[in-house]
Amino acid sequence: MSPCECGKLAEKAGENVGTSRDEFVSSSDPRHPANLICSLCKTFYYNNWVTGTGGGISIKLNDSSHVYIAPSGVQKEQLQPEDMFVMDLNTEKYLRAPEKYKPSACTPLFLSCYKQRGAGAVIHTHSQHAVMCSLIFGDEFRIANIEQIKAIPSGKRDGATGKDINLSFFDTLVIPIIENTAHEEDLTEGLQEALAKYPAATAVIVRRHGIYVWGPSVDKAKVYNEAIDYLMELAVKMHQLGIPPDCAIGAEKEYV
Amino acid sequence: MSPCECGKLAEKAGENVGTSRDEFVSSSDPRHPANLICSLCKTFYYNNWVTGTGGGISIKLNDSSHVYIAPSGVQKEQLQPEDMFVMDLNTEKYLRAPEKYKPSACTPLFLSCYKQRGAGAVIHTHSQHAVMCSLIFGDEFRIANIEQIKAIPSGKRDGATGKDINLSFFDTLVIPIIENTAHEEDLTEGLQEALAKYPAATAVIVRRHGIYVWGPSVDKAKVYNEAIDYLMELAVKMHQLGIPPDCAIGAEKEYV
Amino acid sequence: MSPCECGKLAEKAGENVGTSRDEFVSSSDPRHPANLICSLCKTFYYNNWVTGTGGGISIKLNDSSHVYIAPSGVQKEQLQPEDMFVMDLNTEKYLRAPEKYKPSACTPLFLSCYKQRGAGAVIHTHSQHAVMCSLIFGDEFRIANIEQIKAIPSGKRDGATGKDINLSFFDTLVIPIIENTAHEEDLTEGLQEALAKYPAATAVIVRRHGIYVWGPSVDKAKVYNEAIDYLMELAVKMHQLGIPPDCAIGAEKEYV
Amino acid sequence: MSPCECGKLAEKAGENVGTSRDEFVSSSDPRHPANLICSLCKTFYYNNWVTGTGGGISIKLNDSSHVYIAPSGVQKEQLQPEDMFVMDLNTEKYLRAPEKYKPSACTPLFLSCYKQRGAGAVIHTHSQHAVMCSLIFGDEFRIANIEQIKAIPSGKRDGATGKDINLSFFDTLVIPIIENTAHEEDLTEGLQEALAKYPAATAVIVRRHGIYVWGPSVDKAKVYNEAIDYLMELAVKMHQLGIPPDCAIGAEKEYV
Repeated sequence: MSPCECGKLAEKAGENVGTSRDEFVSSSDPRHPANLICSLCKTFYYNNWVTGTGGGISIKLNDSSHVYIAPSGVQKEQLQPEDMFVMDLNTEKYLRAPEKYKPSACTPLFLSCYKQRGAGAVIHTHSQHAVMCSLIFGDEFRIANIEQIKAIPSGKRDGATGKDINLSFFDTLVIPIIENTAHEEDLTEGLQEALAKYPAATAVIVRRHGIYVWGPSVDKAKVYNEAIDYLMELAVKMHQLGIPPDCAIGAEKEYV
Repeated sequence: MSPCECGKLAEKAGENVGTSRDEFVSSSDPRHPANLICSLCKTFYYNNWVTGTGGGISIKLNDSSHVYIAPSGVQKEQLQPEDMFVMDLNTEKYLRAPEKYKPSACTPLFLSCYKQRGAGAVIHTHSQHAVMCSLIFGDEFRIANIEQIKAIPSGKRDGATGKDINLSFFDTLVIPIIENTAHEEDLTEGLQEALAKYPAATAVIVRRHGIYVWGPSVDKAKVYNEAIDYLMELAVKMHQLGIPPDCAIGAEKEYV
Repeated sequence: MSPCECGKLAEKAGENVGTSRDEFVSSSDPRHPANLICSLCKTFYYNNWVTGTGGGISIKLNDSSHVYIAPSGVQKEQLQPEDMFVMDLNTEKYLRAPEKYKPSACTPLFLSCYKQRGAGAVIHTHSQHAVMCSLIFGDEFRIANIEQIKAIPSGKRDGATGKDINLSFFDTLVIPIIENTAHEEDLTEGLQEALAKYPAATAVIVRRHGIYVWGPSVDKAKVYNEAIDYLMELAVKMHQLGIPPDCAIGAEKEYV
Repeated sequence: MSPCECGKLAEKAGENVGTSRDEFVSSSDPRHPANLICSLCKTFYYNNWVTGTGGGISIKLNDSSHVYIAPSGVQKEQLQPEDMFVMDLNTEKYLRAPEKYKPSACTPLFLSCYKQRGAGAVIHTHSQHAVMCSLIFGDEFRIANIEQIKAIPSGKRDGATGKDINLSFFDTLVIPIIENTAHEEDLTEGLQEALAKYPAATAVIVRRHGIYVWGPSVDKAKVYNEAIDYLMELAVKMHQLGIPPDCAIGAEKEYV
């Protein structure tokens, strides 16, 4: 979500504009959010997920309320740690706001995932597979009986261990598709409705726009994003051969 | 535009042939045009945009009238700073012309973008998505209601700040398509006509050839080129599914 | 095969949990299994074969009964030598089991290839070309009269030298396709049946899942996997044009 | 052309087996044939042109009769300078033959291009675009009125300068397609016939196999190979939309 005129966000950021606060982004640990956002965005760029300043990403620092967010309208593959915005999740105030950038227009959407889902990271891409699926499908992206869906959580938890239980091979992965809007505020509302209506979902597709994927940690969010992108790519190919991506096992032979 | 027999250009270049003038291309700054052309061409090569010596690029040095131009007919991914031509935009004379190369046949087209549009950089690729769109579409490439078009300027400026206003999600991106010609001179005429007829355009597709994209800075030109290529790729995929890329939101369901 | 609840395997691994046994995975030789698994997985990741923690790989140490196996549910492109499980092929006991990982759910399938086929390495990917072929084809993937099939063994050996004889250009490559299952145990049975029924096969496709490829050495397994993936990709393209991938030479003209 | 049982070649190579003759392949110049073959094969590998040990390459040392040839049946992306065969073009005897490898089965085809066309280098790939074009087209691959064909020589020379004249935008590129054979000897005959029948051709497609591309220097051969591959890729896409790749300008609109 590159070009934004999100007045409220800019205003908030303004409070700390000029405050370099480099301690937030100076870490020699490649897994620190400020560094990880940079390396992940490079990978995403070469996947055609965030070219043309598209897409965005946010990571929460472990055991803290600090969320790191890539700025708006920048070339994602060229990000540097010092380009990052840092917001306190509790106060929703910027702890760090680089003067030369605008805060990401995705920020309210990222916050929704953090607050409504306890996310540890949120990835937003302009994946063409997501856009194509949003053109092919109605209100839900559905794919069933593909091994790769086993990488996606079912929304259920193991009673004994409390761990997430993933989908099984025989399940159907359902991802809600919401309508795009001109302004981010309205998209936040659609996202929050989808979050409420699909409590098991770990992603929301935005029609003619892209996808938001989140997870309890950045590693999980990355894995979910990769697995879902793989499944959306496969669904488009199945559609091209006339096979409904959620058809029963064996039913594909009626279509090819 | 690799192989050229552009007599006039070669003549001009002749004036400075043998003049190494290395001060124009010796910079340790990776963002100096002589260095940036090399690194961008590597990226373009791996996108299949400038393979087989196709395509070209020119960047204007900030706050100067010096434009840097990659030579004709060379392997773009192997360019070195010392391979660059440098021309003064005011005099249209070469300040630097490497003896072993021919000046780019794209030069008059680059100059048109500099002069008629105040460009800071011009990118020319042989993108297959551009060629395919030129086969599918008539005189205009049109795509609407896709988030990524928000990365492209609308041609309007903000009255207060004077900044470019980009297209909105509900707008239609229109890029003129001009006919290709055997000789570059004729292509220049077509380009200049398109520039006059489409004052908002930041790109021109050349039928069965490729695309020219420009912007007020090299960063903007690169972002526009990436965003437009993404949109052309998507348009071809939509066409393959029978969906008109500029159809109204929701209308796609009539076609799939 | 990322998420597994394979109780028996976990139990076995438990015997050596906490035993770091770093001597098994500390080698400066890039061709040592612990190192080679890491570098191969990076390559596989960028081919979209093991994204989203999908897929797996196992290599047997030369002249030993030690098999190295990548752990379950991890990001394959980020594997480190110390992440590897090591099992003794004779005792089927873990010599090394990193505490923080689960053993790969593919382990019984890898063992079947080692024991029934004398494999030196086994590669498992979630290749989309394999999944697509499993949707298009019935019980066998068949492709004929393509030069690349000459990279695949025919199952025959030269009487004099004892060396494998590869398929010829005029042969048909046949790869069995087995049904996927919810639990790995059942997949093992299907794989073993296919190994018995197709003694010449060096690969088995798992419907809606991916492919297992093995060979007498890791180099051969890698080459077979690449060649088969190339052929599956080509078969999907031929199918899209209406050409049966195993049609006679010249018969393709009836379809295009 | 990976797996070969080319008795005559092996016999020739036998004469120098065990002769390391490292002086032929020890050069610190990255443009020396022994080094250049390695770096080009890496690039080709990532283009899916020589995966699974497919394809091959040969480069003639400037101002000498020594031709360098990659060995048969090896992983092309892992080639080292010391793996190279070196043959004297005049005597057709090996000056250097690494004991552990078989000479490339492509050798007689490379020699035909050197002798009948005065080539400086020959590239052989298993490009899927070449295979697809060989399935779509009959005896000739034809594409017209695409800018990229201007990178390919027309077979004519400038009367004054003696330089190659390339195709113009309004020309049709024609590449002969020959039938594949089980044994290399027969392919040589077909190639030589095509060379005689198509004196302007700088490439020959082998049906269901791949392509041979040559040029007066390795740089030219590389550029021709890239440009032709681009054009074959485009031709397949045009065919998928129902557009004949050699149709007249504007005629495409009758088909889409």
